[in-house]
Amino acid sequence: MFNINENYLKLPGSYLFSTIGKKVREFSEANPDNKIIRLGIGDVTLPLVPAVIEALHGAVDEMGKQSTFKGYAPDLGYEFLRKAIADHDFKTRGVSIALDEIFISDGAKSDSGNIQEIFDVNCKIAVCDPVYPVYVDSNVMAGRTGEYIAETGRWSNVIYMPCTKENHFAPELPKEQPDLIYLCFPNNPTGSTITKAELQKWVDYANKVGAVIIYDAAYEAYISEDNVPHTIYECEGAKTCAIEIRSFSKNAGFTGTRLGFTVIPKELKCGDVMLNSLWARRHGTKFNGAPYITQVAGTAVYTEEGRKQTKEQIAYYMNNARVIREGLLSAGYSVSGGVNAPYIWMATPDKMTSWEFFDHLLNKVNVVGTPGSGFGPSGEGYFRLTAFGTYENTLEAIERIKKL
Amino acid sequence: MFNINENYLKLPGSYLFSTIGKKVREFSEANPDNKIIRLGIGDVTLPLVPAVIEALHGAVDEMGKQSTFKGYAPDLGYEFLRKAIADHDFKTRGVSIALDEIFISDGAKSDSGNIQEIFDVNCKIAVCDPVYPVYVDSNVMAGRTGEYIAETGRWSNVIYMPCTKENHFAPELPKEQPDLIYLCFPNNPTGSTITKAELQKWVDYANKVGAVIIYDAAYEAYISEDNVPHTIYECEGAKTCAIEIRSFSKNAGFTGTRLGFTVIPKELKCGDVMLNSLWARRHGTKFNGAPYITQVAGTAVYTEEGRKQTKEQIAYYMNNARVIREGLLSAGYSVSGGVNAPYIWMATPDKMTSWEFFDHLLNKVNVVGTPGSGFGPSGEGYFRLTAFGTYENTLEAIERIKKL
Repeated sequence: MFNINENYLKLPGSYLFSTIGKKVREFSEANPDNKIIRLGIGDVTLPLVPAVIEALHGAVDEMGKQSTFKGYAPDLGYEFLRKAIADHDFKTRGVSIALDEIFISDGAKSDSGNIQEIFDVNCKIAVCDPVYPVYVDSNVMAGRTGEYIAETGRWSNVIYMPCTKENHFAPELPKEQPDLIYLCFPNNPTGSTITKAELQKWVDYANKVGAVIIYDAAYEAYISEDNVPHTIYECEGAKTCAIEIRSFSKNAGFTGTRLGFTVIPKELKCGDVMLNSLWARRHGTKFNGAPYITQVAGTAVYTEEGRKQTKEQIAYYMNNARVIREGLLSAGYSVSGGVNAPYIWMATPDKMTSWEFFDHLLNKVNVVGTPGSGFGPSGEGYFRLTAFGTYENTLEAIERIKKL
Repeated sequence: MFNINENYLKLPGSYLFSTIGKKVREFSEANPDNKIIRLGIGDVTLPLVPAVIEALHGAVDEMGKQSTFKGYAPDLGYEFLRKAIADHDFKTRGVSIALDEIFISDGAKSDSGNIQEIFDVNCKIAVCDPVYPVYVDSNVMAGRTGEYIAETGRWSNVIYMPCTKENHFAPELPKEQPDLIYLCFPNNPTGSTITKAELQKWVDYANKVGAVIIYDAAYEAYISEDNVPHTIYECEGAKTCAIEIRSFSKNAGFTGTRLGFTVIPKELKCGDVMLNSLWARRHGTKFNGAPYITQVAGTAVYTEEGRKQTKEQIAYYMNNARVIREGLLSAGYSVSGGVNAPYIWMATPDKMTSWEFFDHLLNKVNVVGTPGSGFGPSGEGYFRLTAFGTYENTLEAIERIKKL
């Protein structure tokens, strides 16, 4: 008689954004005339830029002719895309990444969920609290997290690194020694970031204790300040301890187009074994490449036109971030983020819990955000708003909140 | 100090098709003037059909306008695609599948590699021998297969079901009781299939012993004979024991476009737990949907034009299959498959091993096929040719082999 993976049953409740979706749907059905403004899930709203659209049409035409038709993609992804990445995302930052250290995928969510697979089931993970739920949930499914303790909202075998107002939403080196450290900067959900010198401390720590940093840089394109690292490989020694995960979702609006990549330097080893080889094996065995047309589209993001156009989109979103940030500050809220990231992290007023504030905003002013507690216990009492709406809606949402 | 998933190190050598690629590359570099004909990897060569190309262009245009832009897709996939699947792949066969029993993915390789994750690590798998390598390798990575025994080419904790000339390449019910049974019909690599009555025996067996059948129906569109089931759910009781995996790669040439789906009926349970819920949780946590444009393209496959055009492609490939089959038979080879499948499975001549015959064909007549032993020990002494080349190349390859 077969059995299931019992670890799945340990996961409490449903995925955060499914719960939000359900609540919004129910409110909307009960109040069909109310205009709901969604600043909740981190989904973009601007269309793909012209350079990408043109590239997509061109690639579709290629797929329609026998002479230019493309079947299975190369295991690691097309070289033209990997070369564009190596040149524009790394060489410009003074970092040399070889083409076979880059693995093209269908997105950062898949990669950040799957990467834990190449590690031993007894590896202990450390995560920021609050945190993007995928890091923890994928490790729960793998049986790495111990038991869920409802009273604390924490897992018994996970090292939590609280990121709160007190430490400016930047994690401190953990007291207990981890094997895998998940870091995300610019951060989802808090919108915070750390300097190159601060990230260097993490790299040094990981090299010292023999830990691997899984560095999620999905929001790199939103960095506006100097001295904030765009890739962890700007730090000395990162190639022997860090895996970096990147996305086209937020820099080029690919949430519904799906493209991302993971970098694993060949210097990153466990004994004699390169993690690069393990991931290559997983990639070749349980994945069959991102679509050709998507890889062509991703390459267009790096052309002169593509860079110019996507930069304009990011500026549009970051103007929204400014509107949210300044509006909330002027209304007396305690706010962070929104400078190097499309996320604004606010403290809930009047000692409301995150979900109470969620219901409050939804019911009173029909604005949807994300309860901070959905990202971890230290997110309780916080709330995330995103800059991915239209300018008009963002402005209206903030005006509504200010009148509360 | 972190550790790796040691199960990965148990995997012998590299992925079959990587080895073939390397051998062909080396031959080609040494003999740049020789025209190599590839009937090896199961990759299609005809372009996407006009109905699909038109749908892709339309969807790309939608992605370029704010009013029709699409971000994250619904967790299970767009309903328009799931409805087309339920109607055309199942209702037409007298099978009722609910829309929330269909999970759209980026392809059957991902699904057949990932599906094992929802089962206990102690589940014992049964596979046909020879077999598509992904089923076994993904279970090796999960630690379910015991140790590799080099002398036999088998894993110590896997139940093998030999498919040889003696049993007409159809597996027999295993003597030892499995928890998970991987079946693929029409079969890759042998091209064989079984009747509905024969498949019913497997369903009855699985229900009796409490096993789950993972049914790979990627080649369903190639079925030409009556009485061969197009879906396992044509069999009575299949909904309480079977998961079906489907692909757009071979019926519509999507190998480089990436689209597939998995069906998990809600009746399929372990105690009170629906496997459907577990897979939904995995889908929502470690995957972010297939691209909108690809899902629109997949839907076009089910339109009247789409069905007509893809049927013509399949007829083209199946004519190649006939050319290979009849050509080899007339030359005195022992051949099977190629009637309900795009694969022709031949016995190697003169007691050559599979790899000896591979080298022989490559060196003497510059034709590339796939060594049967690459699919498992019972594939030794066999060789796979695929019908996915052009008609002209297929004809020439067979003429060359006939002259050997």
